[in-house]
Amino acid sequence: MKDVLNYCAAHQDEYLEQLKDFLRIPSISTSEEAKADIAKAASFVAAQLKGAGMNSVAIHPTKGHPVVYGEWLGAKGAPTVLIYGHYDVQPPDPLDLWKTPPFEPTIRDGKIFARGSADDKGQAFIHMKVVEAFMKTRGALPVNVKFIVEGEEEIGSTNLADFVKKNKKMLACDVILISDTHMMGVKQPSITYGLRGLTYLEMTVTAAKGDMHSGTFGGGVANPIQVLAEILTACKDPKTGKIKIPGFYDDVVVMTKKERAELAKLPHSDAKWAKDIGATKVHGEKGFTTVERTGTRPTFEINGIWGGHTGAGVKTVLPAKASAKVSMRLVANQNPMKIAKLFMDYVKKVTPDTVKCEVKLYDNNGHPALTPIDSAGMRAAAAAIKAVYKKDPFFTREGGSIPVVADFQQLLGSEAVLLGFGLPDDNLHAPNEKFDIIQFSNGMKTAACFLDEFAKIKA
Amino acid sequence: MKDVLNYCAAHQDEYLEQLKDFLRIPSISTSEEAKADIAKAASFVAAQLKGAGMNSVAIHPTKGHPVVYGEWLGAKGAPTVLIYGHYDVQPPDPLDLWKTPPFEPTIRDGKIFARGSADDKGQAFIHMKVVEAFMKTRGALPVNVKFIVEGEEEIGSTNLADFVKKNKKMLACDVILISDTHMMGVKQPSITYGLRGLTYLEMTVTAAKGDMHSGTFGGGVANPIQVLAEILTACKDPKTGKIKIPGFYDDVVVMTKKERAELAKLPHSDAKWAKDIGATKVHGEKGFTTVERTGTRPTFEINGIWGGHTGAGVKTVLPAKASAKVSMRLVANQNPMKIAKLFMDYVKKVTPDTVKCEVKLYDNNGHPALTPIDSAGMRAAAAAIKAVYKKDPFFTREGGSIPVVADFQQLLGSEAVLLGFGLPDDNLHAPNEKFDIIQFSNGMKTAACFLDEFAKIKA
Repeated sequence: MKDVLNYCAAHQDEYLEQLKDFLRIPSISTSEEAKADIAKAASFVAAQLKGAGMNSVAIHPTKGHPVVYGEWLGAKGAPTVLIYGHYDVQPPDPLDLWKTPPFEPTIRDGKIFARGSADDKGQAFIHMKVVEAFMKTRGALPVNVKFIVEGEEEIGSTNLADFVKKNKKMLACDVILISDTHMMGVKQPSITYGLRGLTYLEMTVTAAKGDMHSGTFGGGVANPIQVLAEILTACKDPKTGKIKIPGFYDDVVVMTKKERAELAKLPHSDAKWAKDIGATKVHGEKGFTTVERTGTRPTFEINGIWGGHTGAGVKTVLPAKASAKVSMRLVANQNPMKIAKLFMDYVKKVTPDTVKCEVKLYDNNGHPALTPIDSAGMRAAAAAIKAVYKKDPFFTREGGSIPVVADFQQLLGSEAVLLGFGLPDDNLHAPNEKFDIIQFSNGMKTAACFLDEFAKIKA
Repeated sequence: MKDVLNYCAAHQDEYLEQLKDFLRIPSISTSEEAKADIAKAASFVAAQLKGAGMNSVAIHPTKGHPVVYGEWLGAKGAPTVLIYGHYDVQPPDPLDLWKTPPFEPTIRDGKIFARGSADDKGQAFIHMKVVEAFMKTRGALPVNVKFIVEGEEEIGSTNLADFVKKNKKMLACDVILISDTHMMGVKQPSITYGLRGLTYLEMTVTAAKGDMHSGTFGGGVANPIQVLAEILTACKDPKTGKIKIPGFYDDVVVMTKKERAELAKLPHSDAKWAKDIGATKVHGEKGFTTVERTGTRPTFEINGIWGGHTGAGVKTVLPAKASAKVSMRLVANQNPMKIAKLFMDYVKKVTPDTVKCEVKLYDNNGHPALTPIDSAGMRAAAAAIKAVYKKDPFFTREGGSIPVVADFQQLLGSEAVLLGFGLPDDNLHAPNEKFDIIQFSNGMKTAACFLDEFAKIKA
């Protein structure tokens, strides 16, 4: 592997400059105004795949943002690896908290700061360069490779399942390789074997037809913010942290004693974890550790709330309505549509007759996923990690959601390997997102070794 | 009185055009950007007072927005009426709900639509024109008159008490006449004998140092919006509508049976009241009627809330913090500073140790006020109403706050008469604020008669 690894190392600075070009494109999938940038990012990916020696490179339109595909099928008799990534990014707000602008990639302290640096442009880019390095040095890859890079991951991969369904043959593979997660530390390599699912809703409580004077009407009619607060409070027990939506936990696969024991081995300190995020202390569901709460247990989180006067100064208004965005992270075998329904039913039940409460379900639903640790792909990933990091990886469950993982597994019948090179402090979805250059460098090595190892295991 | 009343009627159209000029000035006291408009509105008032024949007209600077003063003291031996009004207005947001722009006054269906039309430019303007009419027709007023028109009413009259303290002699009077309230209906004239006080606070719950990914961290740390909702829920019992802040009701003057019986006589229909504001039904403190709830009982209202992602689409963020603006309307003898302290102490008590909650008290505090119905000013007001509306007024307590009323009463030792010409559906502090032209017209007549009646009563 020295030829490929040396090639990667020799070209790293050049690759980083190319990655910066990628990161300069504000391809925010949630923004209506970003369509041109989405197209620009898709073209960038297509050009990279062509430059890496991929064939059949094409930008496939969907009802939403396009999917970029490319393949190299010259490894006769060898297995096929489908590499997934996404070129879209989260919105960068609040902008004023970024030390350097989100779309002006800046290297500081060995880290590249930019929206999308870790999630997922930087990680997806690793695979494009690894494949390029193989092709430039050997003119061939140890396995057949297919790339699928989408532009709707941050809005729930709305159209990807449909695309996969329609292109099952084109996407047929032996393993799906995804680098869109993080490992525990630069010296604590880990592989993710579970992901949480997601259901995302928005609710609006309306108490009157228009805003009112809080003096004239205050005390005589329901305050919609007060009622919204009551409904949200009714969703979670403040003391036990248990979600109070009836039936919410019914389908959760109970962790085995063995799994809990394995998770307990993971190096983790509640005090350090809380300190790192600036919390006074950890908080969550009673009876579970922080590792379990964030990886193996479902959640109910309020992602946003607004109503009434939110500007500077005072306004003695009694608002007509108030809204909140809420999402629930789900674990195997919870079904996002079923959970959304349970939530809606519960809200209906706890909403008083003094107001109206409308609940809207977003398209951003994703099934949770679990991959067996002893599968071929996981073993290849573990061997690659060992080769590069000189130690065995930990196996973890990650709290985030990549809805397509469950879809891929179900539709293509292949296992998914989540070989992530991010780190826990990457500030995903937050200001000052970054990607460590050492992880970019080790990531290229590991990704290269994975292709090699997978070819061997499957041989 | 025919000479004066006829003069007012003959010049009404001209006065309305002048009022429109006044309403075109966006003198929003809460806005940092509106200083020039505040100055413009103060100049407008000063010019009106000069035009009406007032002497010693001056724009007095304060630490905040200026106070406009003018006087006519030519009625030797007659009593002195201090007329108070304010030239500042509430912010107009949400702008998209206005049928015509807030600062482009538009007459529709016998109503003038504009921010400040009823609160309080239109009402304050009535007195300027009445005084002008007396001077133009008679060259004299039946009483001595002093005008004080401020620019900080909507932000709690922050600097007015100080101004009054420093100018007690200049402002000395027998009665304070204020038109900044409403009556029950065009054919149901009423006079306000009580006002609620106010204390206004803002609270921010912080759970972490920055926004987090709801997948990676969700379930392991407190959600600040959830905690804020819990704290707000803890402030008011959803079932009884009772405010749960310990000691909150301690100083409330208990209504007498007689007062409750008088209030029960007021024409009021819960069904109609709810329908008018577009509520499904009334809601408030158990054991009290809607008239009592909105006029005689203290309230706890959330005026605004915000946190996390409040824009379009989804963002799977676990926010670092969330905020709310809350205010409490107070009744005699509650003290706004004491109540603010009780609230702060209670918030401290109910805030869990997983977050920090900071509470900030705004300057907008006001004492509640009550004026005896049988005082000279009230009798003059009732007689003026009877002369114009041909029926006796109802006596009501209004839920809104004019903090200066209690200050005036205390500092100047004079009674205050709240002779308001607004109507309940004026949309104060809300989109599509309006002032009925019939009320402008009847208001001029009533204000003119008041000066006449007060001179007679005090003779």
